[in-house]
Amino acid sequence: MADYTLNTTKPGQMLARGVCRLLRGHGYVSVEEFVPTRGLRVDVLGLGPKSELWVIECKSSRADFQTDRKWQGYLAWCDRYFWAVDQDFPADLLPEGTGLMIADAYDAEIIRMAPEHKLAAARRKMMIHKFATHAARRLHSLRDPGVSAFCLPDAPAD
Amino acid sequence: MADYTLNTTKPGQMLARGVCRLLRGHGYVSVEEFVPTRGLRVDVLGLGPKSELWVIECKSSRADFQTDRKWQGYLAWCDRYFWAVDQDFPADLLPEGTGLMIADAYDAEIIRMAPEHKLAAARRKMMIHKFATHAARRLHSLRDPGVSAFCLPDAPAD
Repeated sequence: MADYTLNTTKPGQMLARGVCRLLRGHGYVSVEEFVPTRGLRVDVLGLGPKSELWVIECKSSRADFQTDRKWQGYLAWCDRYFWAVDQDFPADLLPEGTGLMIADAYDAEIIRMAPEHKLAAARRKMMIHKFATHAARRLHSLRDPGVSAFCLPDAPAD
Repeated sequence: MADYTLNTTKPGQMLARGVCRLLRGHGYVSVEEFVPTRGLRVDVLGLGPKSELWVIECKSSRADFQTDRKWQGYLAWCDRYFWAVDQDFPADLLPEGTGLMIADAYDAEIIRMAPEHKLAAARRKMMIHKFATHAARRLHSLRDPGVSAFCLPDAPAD
């Protein structure tokens, strides 16, 4: 079956698609391009059945990884932090103490579980509220395309 | 501008569309057909910026209202409970102690604010997690139609 969506999708977004399928298979839901706080935007945020929060950054190439100056800032917004790369990526480059997924556009696999650093309760609560808001806003825009014209634009931080 | 989505939408869903636009204009996000617990399904659940939870039931006709045997069961799952009806609906039928919105497919207006009965913290936390899960699952199915084939079906309660 032809998969037309892939033609217009960037390499990192294809990895994210596979990652989100993996997460769903594990009972997690996910959103893409989530903004935990102004100036940060994570590729994938997963929410687990027990309110676990996982951040997954998708890197399509060595250069994509080496130009990332922000990833350490994401650690404070999740319980576990993972990289997702394709099978040709030189995984030795990736820092210790982080998780690793091998992904393609169709699926992903957890190669190394990330260590857990549990969020404080107040931050978890804020993140889940923000996750709900992010997902519902985007869903609303898809099911009622007229809503964008009707409403004020979203705040720039989300 | 032609609005093709309306041709295949039931009257209650048209009211829900207007209600969701109203909510968004008030800074609330919303989901439709949300299942708080097995056997109950609310038309619209709104989530406010301070984690307020509003349930809005959309009634397209007198018969639609009079055959509803479940609405009192929804009160335990929200801070405020509203009816949304069109301008021709005999609003005198509606019980006291509930809120009222007049809606059409394009917008809605709050005619009578619902009294507030605040949820307990544990239930609010559970509801927001479930709201996030509901919205993200449906968003995921729309942005990656292949995911339904890839994953196990959702649990029947949600």
